[in-house]
Amino acid sequence: MGLLDSIKNANDIKKIPEKDLPVLAEEIRKRLLEITSQNGGHLASNLGVVEITIALHRLLDFPEDKLIFDVGHQSYVHKMLTGRNEAMETLRKLDGLSGFTDPNESDCDASISGHASNAISIALGYATARELKGTYEKVVAVIGDGSLTGGMSNEALNNAANLKGNVVIILNDNERSISANVGGLANYLGKIRTSTKYINTKSIIRKGLEHIPFIGEHIKSGIHTTKESIKRLLVEGMMFEDLGITYIGPIDGHDIEQITDALNSAFRFEGPVLIHALTVKGKGYEYAEKHPAQFHGVNPFDIETGDELSKSSGKSYTSVFSSKMLELAEKDKRIVAITAAMPFGTGLYYFHKKYPDRFFDVGIAEEHAVAFAAGLASSGLRPVVAIYSTFLQRAYDQIIHDVCMSNLPVIFAVDRAGIVGNDGKTHQGLFDESFLTSIPNLVVMSPKNGRELEEMFDYALTLNCPVAIRYPRGKVTNALDEYDAPLELNKDEIIRHGSEVCLMATGVMVETALKVGEKLRADGINATIVNVRFLSHVNEELVEQLSNSHKLFVTMEEVIEHGSYGERLNSAIIKNGLNVKTLNVSLPNVFVEHGTIAELRQRYGLDEESVYQRIKKQM
Amino acid sequence: MGLLDSIKNANDIKKIPEKDLPVLAEEIRKRLLEITSQNGGHLASNLGVVEITIALHRLLDFPEDKLIFDVGHQSYVHKMLTGRNEAMETLRKLDGLSGFTDPNESDCDASISGHASNAISIALGYATARELKGTYEKVVAVIGDGSLTGGMSNEALNNAANLKGNVVIILNDNERSISANVGGLANYLGKIRTSTKYINTKSIIRKGLEHIPFIGEHIKSGIHTTKESIKRLLVEGMMFEDLGITYIGPIDGHDIEQITDALNSAFRFEGPVLIHALTVKGKGYEYAEKHPAQFHGVNPFDIETGDELSKSSGKSYTSVFSSKMLELAEKDKRIVAITAAMPFGTGLYYFHKKYPDRFFDVGIAEEHAVAFAAGLASSGLRPVVAIYSTFLQRAYDQIIHDVCMSNLPVIFAVDRAGIVGNDGKTHQGLFDESFLTSIPNLVVMSPKNGRELEEMFDYALTLNCPVAIRYPRGKVTNALDEYDAPLELNKDEIIRHGSEVCLMATGVMVETALKVGEKLRADGINATIVNVRFLSHVNEELVEQLSNSHKLFVTMEEVIEHGSYGERLNSAIIKNGLNVKTLNVSLPNVFVEHGTIAELRQRYGLDEESVYQRIKKQM
Repeated sequence: MGLLDSIKNANDIKKIPEKDLPVLAEEIRKRLLEITSQNGGHLASNLGVVEITIALHRLLDFPEDKLIFDVGHQSYVHKMLTGRNEAMETLRKLDGLSGFTDPNESDCDASISGHASNAISIALGYATARELKGTYEKVVAVIGDGSLTGGMSNEALNNAANLKGNVVIILNDNERSISANVGGLANYLGKIRTSTKYINTKSIIRKGLEHIPFIGEHIKSGIHTTKESIKRLLVEGMMFEDLGITYIGPIDGHDIEQITDALNSAFRFEGPVLIHALTVKGKGYEYAEKHPAQFHGVNPFDIETGDELSKSSGKSYTSVFSSKMLELAEKDKRIVAITAAMPFGTGLYYFHKKYPDRFFDVGIAEEHAVAFAAGLASSGLRPVVAIYSTFLQRAYDQIIHDVCMSNLPVIFAVDRAGIVGNDGKTHQGLFDESFLTSIPNLVVMSPKNGRELEEMFDYALTLNCPVAIRYPRGKVTNALDEYDAPLELNKDEIIRHGSEVCLMATGVMVETALKVGEKLRADGINATIVNVRFLSHVNEELVEQLSNSHKLFVTMEEVIEHGSYGERLNSAIIKNGLNVKTLNVSLPNVFVEHGTIAELRQRYGLDEESVYQRIKKQM
Repeated sequence: MGLLDSIKNANDIKKIPEKDLPVLAEEIRKRLLEITSQNGGHLASNLGVVEITIALHRLLDFPEDKLIFDVGHQSYVHKMLTGRNEAMETLRKLDGLSGFTDPNESDCDASISGHASNAISIALGYATARELKGTYEKVVAVIGDGSLTGGMSNEALNNAANLKGNVVIILNDNERSISANVGGLANYLGKIRTSTKYINTKSIIRKGLEHIPFIGEHIKSGIHTTKESIKRLLVEGMMFEDLGITYIGPIDGHDIEQITDALNSAFRFEGPVLIHALTVKGKGYEYAEKHPAQFHGVNPFDIETGDELSKSSGKSYTSVFSSKMLELAEKDKRIVAITAAMPFGTGLYYFHKKYPDRFFDVGIAEEHAVAFAAGLASSGLRPVVAIYSTFLQRAYDQIIHDVCMSNLPVIFAVDRAGIVGNDGKTHQGLFDESFLTSIPNLVVMSPKNGRELEEMFDYALTLNCPVAIRYPRGKVTNALDEYDAPLELNKDEIIRHGSEVCLMATGVMVETALKVGEKLRADGINATIVNVRFLSHVNEELVEQLSNSHKLFVTMEEVIEHGSYGERLNSAIIKNGLNVKTLNVSLPNVFVEHGTIAELRQRYGLDEESVYQRIKKQM
């Protein structure tokens, strides 16, 4: 039996002799490869935190102590060490383990994770509550250098100094978010990496500071106090020290002993302490070390070769967008592209290669991305901001205040809109329609296929206002190409003329509507099928006209119910006093779990058979 | 004729001899007092930037050069110097000048302002566009130290180093947001203020750096490169320098010559430059200098005494909340309170005085405020997060991801919900219902009067889930106290039983509904009046029951139409196949301008007479 197998519950790791920990680390890495090569998931980030997680689990008591992972895609090792190693087989599968931490899954998980940059805030909440309650649990946040570029992290760091008790922040510095990290902070951390040897963690800093001979004689007085000056010379991480946070580092994040020593020292300080641990993303797996972005999130792959097992054929919406941007940029010099740390995920990588000066990766910083775009658009450029639906939630206020209030022609490429599948509830793109369509001036569209996605970008550029185009994860359909009515503002496209039942579908659901239409036809019902292109507008004229020959309107959308197009269609129908019934097919107002997209569509009644059955029932 | 009167257009200030500028500054201060004492508005912040604005207007050419004000409540002087001095009489009045910058008002305004921490992002957008276009305009952002605590500012600072061309950021450091600034950054800036004399702006820094004798002999090598070390000793603002931003300062922000010299130097640098200007909020008006929070935003006042002209009588919703929090905190030790730099505005000031350990002012940092609350709630406390409706937009993602997904019992006190009046479009609280009611698990309530506000807080504490309570700016009504049905989850309160017309009103609109009911009664119509307490839920049972005796349902809300309760009621009616008509009274999907609350209600048809007329027309 291996060491890992002997860890059945949280805290079992403490029974393993210290000398055997490197073997455990090796077993864990093997297991990480085994799981992710089968189930897909986050690989490189987990390989990078094996030693950090081991060291933490040696010193913390679960579930009393609180360990908060930022983003949480690096929590697999933690899961393995808290009684979930066997269950890892179910990782990211329907009703299986989540790919992120979740208190509903284990009381050893201190928070739901998925979005970046919140860990320090949550840790400060836990630590502050501890001080008020007079309890003694330890609180540790693990955060990557990528997440540190997110504004919320800075808000939290600014507040950390107010905490009287201890909180430990482990900065897992691998020089990357998914891609290479960007900006002034990355440069600063990079300087520390290159200019400094690892500190001697046994004699942790600072204590000897006062004994160094006075060096100020050459320095004009009045600029700094001397003690402060010396500290500036000797202590790295002054940026954190200036904020009132004790800095320990840099240390080797793959040396369990160093990490343990640093943690033991850190726990002795009053107030916030940041341990700067240098790690290698993908550590221990050659392909992942070489290509950390590619091995950040993986589909099932061959461990020996590193190759994806079943390269799915066909173009994704993302790749259609990717190519389209190259075409648009060539024709229109005003076009610039912005991503928040997602050059690969959004498909803007090729744009970056071809037009480096017109491409901006702002890091994990969605708020800045949008306000920056507002500045660019104010100056006559046509920025395209590509952000996943779920992460665009971060920039809600900026979309309202900085872009739409000034009616600036920023184009939002809202990728991963709808059900995203195995990443689960923190990543589903189900709120964008609700929050975007209630913003004045913003035109919100969704394409039925890849070709329409392209046309919508062409069309967006003809509009002099903000536009959001939402499109899903996954492959474009090869169907529907014959339906190509030119885009016209706030006009929907009639795919098929019929009577009795009118299917009003948006985006990916148009293809489903067509299939539902076939099923209904077999029952002798000739349904009308409408491609609802503009989610921000109900075409009342069309609806009124169709109401003469249809008894039932069925809206079909992959969004949350509240704030959906379906609700607004209902509203329009009643306002216009039309005598029709409606059936709204959408997600209920719940947080949708993980599973494959197909499984989740079926579970929530969005697949063709379910929709068909619901229509039959309603009729 | 005064000097200020001679400035009829942008750039006219350049004709005024340098020696006369102090006189101009004096005239401007007099004018600021004149305008704000009559119209109300932002006083202290404008008094603090008189010299900075004068210096900027001497060096910039409008509208070519771009001056971006963060928040924009300090832009009155800029307005006076760009052809709007006479029009200042109309400031914040219906169809008059806005209290913030707005490109629709003047081409000398580079952005719509109102919310904090976006100026650096927008400036980087302008400057980046300039580099791409090959033009030569100057770009300057003016941002307060308070706004620097907002995460978006940090995201922008992190990206600033990527800019090749020049951008100048003036850090207007008055040690305050509205209240005293908080956190590690404030401490850091405070250290610079106290430890340093003003720099000699004539021989701006750095150029002599290399000539200082080598001081490294006592220093163990390998920690820093020597040049870096010397810089650390001599240059303040290393936190900014570490991010790749050239730091100039500190300078006296009330010395026009110093500011001018610093600007002239700053414009010569490639890349981003931050000028750290120390100012006094309220400068030149004794009362405002002494009480900068009180004179931040003012109602009309007597210049001689500093006293408000007509102290309005009656309690505000804010003050009811303020007292209630004291009562709750005494009874329930789990209660803690969080504000984002608004201890006075939210009424939490008294809580702060009485329970300093249980009160947290996190600075302008709404994202952190909410995630921090999630941590506190996870640990068993009951945090109350008080944030104005419009600023809560900033934390949309955190409400979803960090609070509601874990179903944590955080209570959101959503003040200034609805029309806020003279602050105008950036401050109206009209989106909260749309964005909050589409979030799973979140219970959203709105009280009809002060007493119900209190009851809703009592009730929220009995629920084990997240709750948002939206309440308006302004005084509580003295009416409606006789209607006090106990709160019950997702149940509305029937205020009056009638037939034919059913008025379903939320929050402040309940009182209006009662008045509309009176008018209808005079016409022989006995309307039912329902107080819709739970905005996140349509009570379908009640609606179905009422539909038997009512032909028309009228929803009355002070929110934007899309995503409103009214839309969902319509949806419920059609889903349940009820044979009734509806009239939805709400704000249309536009950005609502400034004016008094009464004026705006009338303009958008929300006052009793308008609603009455709309009902009559519909019938």
